[in-house]
Amino acid sequence: MKNSKKRFIETLQEISDHIIKNSEELNLSEINKLIEKIIEIHNKGNRVFIYGAGRSGFMGRAFAQRLMHLGIKSCFVSDAVTYRYTPFDLLIIISGSGETTSSVAIARKAHEIGGALALLTGNPNSAIGSLSDLIIRIQGKSKDKARSQKTLAPYTSLFDICTLSVLDSIGGVLMDLLNVSEDDIDNKHASIE
Amino acid sequence: MKNSKKRFIETLQEISDHIIKNSEELNLSEINKLIEKIIEIHNKGNRVFIYGAGRSGFMGRAFAQRLMHLGIKSCFVSDAVTYRYTPFDLLIIISGSGETTSSVAIARKAHEIGGALALLTGNPNSAIGSLSDLIIRIQGKSKDKARSQKTLAPYTSLFDICTLSVLDSIGGVLMDLLNVSEDDIDNKHASIE
Amino acid sequence: MKNSKKRFIETLQEISDHIIKNSEELNLSEINKLIEKIIEIHNKGNRVFIYGAGRSGFMGRAFAQRLMHLGIKSCFVSDAVTYRYTPFDLLIIISGSGETTSSVAIARKAHEIGGALALLTGNPNSAIGSLSDLIIRIQGKSKDKARSQKTLAPYTSLFDICTLSVLDSIGGVLMDLLNVSEDDIDNKHASIE
Amino acid sequence: MKNSKKRFIETLQEISDHIIKNSEELNLSEINKLIEKIIEIHNKGNRVFIYGAGRSGFMGRAFAQRLMHLGIKSCFVSDAVTYRYTPFDLLIIISGSGETTSSVAIARKAHEIGGALALLTGNPNSAIGSLSDLIIRIQGKSKDKARSQKTLAPYTSLFDICTLSVLDSIGGVLMDLLNVSEDDIDNKHASIE
Repeated sequence: MKNSKKRFIETLQEISDHIIKNSEELNLSEINKLIEKIIEIHNKGNRVFIYGAGRSGFMGRAFAQRLMHLGIKSCFVSDAVTYRYTPFDLLIIISGSGETTSSVAIARKAHEIGGALALLTGNPNSAIGSLSDLIIRIQGKSKDKARSQKTLAPYTSLFDICTLSVLDSIGGVLMDLLNVSEDDIDNKHASIE
Repeated sequence: MKNSKKRFIETLQEISDHIIKNSEELNLSEINKLIEKIIEIHNKGNRVFIYGAGRSGFMGRAFAQRLMHLGIKSCFVSDAVTYRYTPFDLLIIISGSGETTSSVAIARKAHEIGGALALLTGNPNSAIGSLSDLIIRIQGKSKDKARSQKTLAPYTSLFDICTLSVLDSIGGVLMDLLNVSEDDIDNKHASIE
Repeated sequence: MKNSKKRFIETLQEISDHIIKNSEELNLSEINKLIEKIIEIHNKGNRVFIYGAGRSGFMGRAFAQRLMHLGIKSCFVSDAVTYRYTPFDLLIIISGSGETTSSVAIARKAHEIGGALALLTGNPNSAIGSLSDLIIRIQGKSKDKARSQKTLAPYTSLFDICTLSVLDSIGGVLMDLLNVSEDDIDNKHASIE
Repeated sequence: MKNSKKRFIETLQEISDHIIKNSEELNLSEINKLIEKIIEIHNKGNRVFIYGAGRSGFMGRAFAQRLMHLGIKSCFVSDAVTYRYTPFDLLIIISGSGETTSSVAIARKAHEIGGALALLTGNPNSAIGSLSDLIIRIQGKSKDKARSQKTLAPYTSLFDICTLSVLDSIGGVLMDLLNVSEDDIDNKHASIE
């Protein structure tokens, strides 16, 4: 298994490098606009909805939970308590291809209702991209390119980890801007789980 | 928001650095044992169960899905289809503190039943650690240390992202050892979601 | 709270009555066709996929779990382990209105792929109804009629409980036809949860 | 399949009868106490937490959603947005046997924190029962008796459906007491899902 150890470490190196490579190509003014939008939603007492299917959804759930820790009203679409989305709310969708079946349908419905729509995607020129007010482009194989790009990390892993890194870094900035301390987060963290 | 851009980029840098720092301190022979155990379980037609609460659980769900993509029988404990855990199966628990309420209870029950137990944690000297056959120590603030360690990424984020990076790198090695191609994964990936 | 006790008991009576009323109006040959289809899928080693949004989804998850207990390969679409849907599989959708956003999108995608589609609904003349090979009409206020019909049980409750009753009765028939005993179910029931 | 039709109808009849039989044996003053407790929690601006594993959890999620529809702050423990449980909150656990692994652990932790605990169970003399402030006994095979009691509906189905019927009837009473209309529910129901 000597080769496995080497491959394992090289994959972690690839992931680490990819986060930096991605950060260099990110459109920081779009990131800033998303942060400002979340703060505006928060200040007005409205809600941030998050959705994604599959692994994108698990990254999204992690962010929905972090927003709650920061005192921001949030929910993950499909959880037991999914509130009514209104024209005053923000929906953040994570979809590598921008074409995921349920995500497209939910984006269209939200667009019809009229709230703001932000997208984290590897593919801005997509069905959801065309409906979005804000697009954060994340590097990394999304499902549509998963077979053609050669990486050590399997399939969409680089996209998923980069997405979570971007979302948690947004969380870090929000923490700073809203003056939330680690103690504050601890006081909001689930105590029975 | 100039300061926000700077903070955002520095947080991504911190995450990237932390993945490397963590990789240098990882016990690679424990990683190899976990990979060998998963392959043994797979070869015998048994199952890999994954569990974690909160954000640890979302990282675990992402890994459970990746294992399925690799053709390995897996399930996330609490999903609608949660199979019976038997003495022939492997349970992988993710718990930063090693003391999460439901995770400890599930680890104890699994230990009583008698299958193998692996733990990804920031705290090997913990209730779940004491029951585990294999422990992968992940650097990064776990819930128990979240208030005392100073980082840019909020609360347990470094632990969560490092954990996902380690799990996806294990996925990469499994892909190699089991001769699974990106096309094979694509052929197992959800087509309605 | 004397009035509350009366109202509570009357609501349970309404639910009980509604299950009978519904059973009298059910199309039993459609029920039989669904049971035969599930057995055919099972005999060929293929899978039953279940989907529904909101409370319909929770009823669906309960059925997906029961199918697994009966030894039938099943999964709930959106769970961590959601397999690839193929033209050889069956998708059962629960949607009171037959027009739920994500359910319509998933039904269309499944129809495009080409497997069999069964629908439990209060509204057969709906977007999903028009795509379905089998339709089980369930009485009870679905979301589209929730405001106009007067009942004690709130909103879609009668639809949801009737749906679960129909699904569990289908489970009972499958148990009989496949010669599954309560002990067999017990041996497949989750042991860590 | 003539016999199947007969068995199917008889199972629905069994379910309907069981809801009535259960209602006759329910302790209505405990039901009233639970309703009063929920209203007290609501009036003070505190939260109702719901938990259950497996099918009990799916019934619980349906109730958590209904409480939100009624304007009551609720969450299902394990969802992305799981708030911090405090001594001012109420936890409702659904566990047929009263001994389910994760449910017992969560009940103990909640008891330690000090909020109110209500249990819906088939087995009041159980680990969770001994910690509970309020116990609603539901008839129907719970997991511990599933093999010894003979019914047409498989395994715990009668318990699960009775539990949902009781919870939705409680929802009906709350709707009445809080003066919530079907239109009000519609205005709180998820619009993107």
